[in-house]
Amino acid sequence: MVWFKNLIQNPLIKTSSKSLLKTTPRPATKNFVLFSLSHYYNFYTTDASSSSSSSAATAAAVNQSSGLGPTAAGEKPRVVVLGSGWAGCRLLKDIDTSLYDVVCVSPRNHMVFTPLLASTCVGTLEFRSVAEPIGRIQPAISKEPGSYFFLANCTSVDADNHVVQCETVTDGLNTLNPWKFKISYDKLVIALGAEALTFGIQGVAENAIFLREVYHAQEIRRKLLLNLMLSDVPGISEEEKCRLLHCVVVGGGPTGVEFSGELSDFIKRDVHQRYAHVKDYIHVTLIEANEILSSFDDRLRHYATKQLSKSGVRLVRGIVKDVKPQKLILNDGTEVPYGLLVWSTGVGPSSFVNSLELPKSPGGRIGIDEWLRVPSVQDIFAIGDCSGYVESTGRPVLPALAQVAERQGKYLASLLNRVGKAGGGQANNAKDIELGDPFVYKHLGSMATLGRFKALVDLRQSKDAKGVSMAGFVSWFIWRSAYLTQYRFEERLAALQVLQVMWRTKL
Amino acid sequence: MVWFKNLIQNPLIKTSSKSLLKTTPRPATKNFVLFSLSHYYNFYTTDASSSSSSSAATAAAVNQSSGLGPTAAGEKPRVVVLGSGWAGCRLLKDIDTSLYDVVCVSPRNHMVFTPLLASTCVGTLEFRSVAEPIGRIQPAISKEPGSYFFLANCTSVDADNHVVQCETVTDGLNTLNPWKFKISYDKLVIALGAEALTFGIQGVAENAIFLREVYHAQEIRRKLLLNLMLSDVPGISEEEKCRLLHCVVVGGGPTGVEFSGELSDFIKRDVHQRYAHVKDYIHVTLIEANEILSSFDDRLRHYATKQLSKSGVRLVRGIVKDVKPQKLILNDGTEVPYGLLVWSTGVGPSSFVNSLELPKSPGGRIGIDEWLRVPSVQDIFAIGDCSGYVESTGRPVLPALAQVAERQGKYLASLLNRVGKAGGGQANNAKDIELGDPFVYKHLGSMATLGRFKALVDLRQSKDAKGVSMAGFVSWFIWRSAYLTQYRFEERLAALQVLQVMWRTKL
Repeated sequence: MVWFKNLIQNPLIKTSSKSLLKTTPRPATKNFVLFSLSHYYNFYTTDASSSSSSSAATAAAVNQSSGLGPTAAGEKPRVVVLGSGWAGCRLLKDIDTSLYDVVCVSPRNHMVFTPLLASTCVGTLEFRSVAEPIGRIQPAISKEPGSYFFLANCTSVDADNHVVQCETVTDGLNTLNPWKFKISYDKLVIALGAEALTFGIQGVAENAIFLREVYHAQEIRRKLLLNLMLSDVPGISEEEKCRLLHCVVVGGGPTGVEFSGELSDFIKRDVHQRYAHVKDYIHVTLIEANEILSSFDDRLRHYATKQLSKSGVRLVRGIVKDVKPQKLILNDGTEVPYGLLVWSTGVGPSSFVNSLELPKSPGGRIGIDEWLRVPSVQDIFAIGDCSGYVESTGRPVLPALAQVAERQGKYLASLLNRVGKAGGGQANNAKDIELGDPFVYKHLGSMATLGRFKALVDLRQSKDAKGVSMAGFVSWFIWRSAYLTQYRFEERLAALQVLQVMWRTKL
Repeated sequence: MVWFKNLIQNPLIKTSSKSLLKTTPRPATKNFVLFSLSHYYNFYTTDASSSSSSSAATAAAVNQSSGLGPTAAGEKPRVVVLGSGWAGCRLLKDIDTSLYDVVCVSPRNHMVFTPLLASTCVGTLEFRSVAEPIGRIQPAISKEPGSYFFLANCTSVDADNHVVQCETVTDGLNTLNPWKFKISYDKLVIALGAEALTFGIQGVAENAIFLREVYHAQEIRRKLLLNLMLSDVPGISEEEKCRLLHCVVVGGGPTGVEFSGELSDFIKRDVHQRYAHVKDYIHVTLIEANEILSSFDDRLRHYATKQLSKSGVRLVRGIVKDVKPQKLILNDGTEVPYGLLVWSTGVGPSSFVNSLELPKSPGGRIGIDEWLRVPSVQDIFAIGDCSGYVESTGRPVLPALAQVAERQGKYLASLLNRVGKAGGGQANNAKDIELGDPFVYKHLGSMATLGRFKALVDLRQSKDAKGVSMAGFVSWFIWRSAYLTQYRFEERLAALQVLQVMWRTKL
């Protein structure tokens, strides 16, 4: 044990205690290495609507209209990306940061792998596993002098002056008052996604949980476990126990079906073991106005219906009329008491998208042409669920799917890279540059999981086309492979390409 | 690909769509397997103080004074454990469930490995890794008919009638109104722990974050990342940037020192890489009124002081007078602006412990004798940080340490098992039973980590005793081994026993 004793007598230990300084702390005002000071620019416009000042005014409450000014002639042009979903992140990943500075503005500092979100609600996957920090998708935003990620919402777009106005998000924490700033862009990419639809039904927003963000999944998990514990408390009536443990899912699309499947798995595996006292009280009901998985092949739909029923999910055809705190009411007057209500009836344009004075597609999305440009304005592009072809293109609006968004992001990154290389990166400078082929979307197929080891894969181009559709364990394996391979874009794409080859060769 | 085609033509798929039932859902009122109905007992006492009824009254709002009644002669006696910390969980783990039914009442359904909590704030460890569900520590509570875990607070103890009154915890979620119920006990174990001390300083509870629960660590991580992102927003003044990124820790005990070490590691490893724009603005200050790690050997203290300073932590001797939302004020008038404030100045009795009409130890803890019994009442025991020897024992109150709590839990479990085997498990039935040797505490040593690869281990029985103390990598390795070996009690204890042997043999 000589080495050990030597270590104990390490001379490092014989230090005087004077390093426990008695000085008072001072804010670090030295050694500031301020990158890209040239980008910090004062717009000299007084913003009358700065209603953000609250009680705890900070020393920073001056300069409320600061921001990043226009890039100078010798500087890299700046691409501003609004949003951090499938479309925005794919673009961020592929954009050439030797050509452009990139600035991402989003209220969320990570990308969510939405198809895996349902699995995190019951602990099949960890929350951390379905989220990827933006800084890892595009390292330049945390290192390069002119590239940034701002945790903020965009509040308006000034297309004429090539400027967006933003406001910080503080996530309910008392740390900094909402802060307004402006960013000049050379190219603007709007990739803000869509919002959950509630069809104007009262009480949905207050009482139901959506399943679109990591914090939704966390809330679902928390409420489910809380209800399991509370239902075991002595004296709770049978009726109340049933209500607490009744999990209702509204909407029979892939998300609703996948979540129902995960829930019934959770009941079979975990509740029976870890909450044995109440295992016979817990039930899952899936309410859908039409058919579940309506975009899938008939056979697959029937398979899904059978599998879900077999695993204990009650499928109910009904239309929700009203949502109260502990029960919902269907159109026919039936009252459905619930302890947990998950709402997943599709998505539509957000109120911010509605407010934008830009051309629109049928259905109210931001209008785009075949090159994903917003017509009638310069240097603005829109991709993903927030965008749709304008009527004049003669093309149908694409479905709100991850694969559409991701491929639009990829396409636009290569378009912008081509423009940048040709010297058209700066604002109002790309008019004479060849944009290349327009964007073409080819549907690779639809996938949905039905819980453990069962999934559906539909590899047809459209509902009425011919092609391969399958169900069962192999589908589940393909589904998991497609999404779970370390969440790398390339690997997920490779898995999708395998499916594509299978489809092309008709197996 | 024949197997594949076969799979696609799986007959399971050819199911009719009729299983998408058109029935309306009904609460499951059949197949109820209600365990231990005999334990559900109505006390017939109307509780006038039931102030819990809120707006959303539920169907369950009857029977507000239900609960678990006294056990009958032929039934297993019931041990009620209040709390789920080191003491309560060790007892739960070791109690013989063939002799007793166990009921645990706690607002937390998991045990927290408190010494590892600091590491979760910056992502060194995952939150899930430092928490162990009670149901895994004692599986009987989720399976056995008469054993339960209740997510609730104990609100009063009626020692004469052997009954505790409880109220459910709903964690801010609108799912069930607070629910009151009573539990009769044969043996009551109070293991409620202690509360963070604020010394009556204004603003601590509102503005500082403690570091005692998993949700504290989550809040710290969230605020730290939020501040890192917000400080990068254009237009924020230099002063405000410094404030946002000034992390202040008050209290130089093991928790404060460990958290400071983890923070400075995080700055060196992650901030420099992932938040390069603001890396020179972030600083850590540790404020302590006396000396840091005062319970440790002098040499170790000096080593810690040197290591912390070296890694950039500013050590400040000072007394906090007042805490405002964005700055704190020291006794000498110095103002210290902060973005994150962590408070760790020791623990004291909770207001519930103060309210209990039971004998007290010096310092206000629940008084116990050498067998951990609360004198003057029958069948009540107290263990862990909430308990202390009454003056008449002539013994000093033990320090509020995990190792004290855990060994008291272990000791009391074996005492109760001995009593149960001798037929003294029922209430008021253990008077003539030999309790065995009284509890003796032997200090195994103190450990603290200073961040990555550095720690202190002090294996002396007391501050002035002779023995082994060491610092550096081997200590860090021992520290991690002691706590990280899959979090199993046995393995952690084995590691501690290795230390004990080293201490006994003086290496």
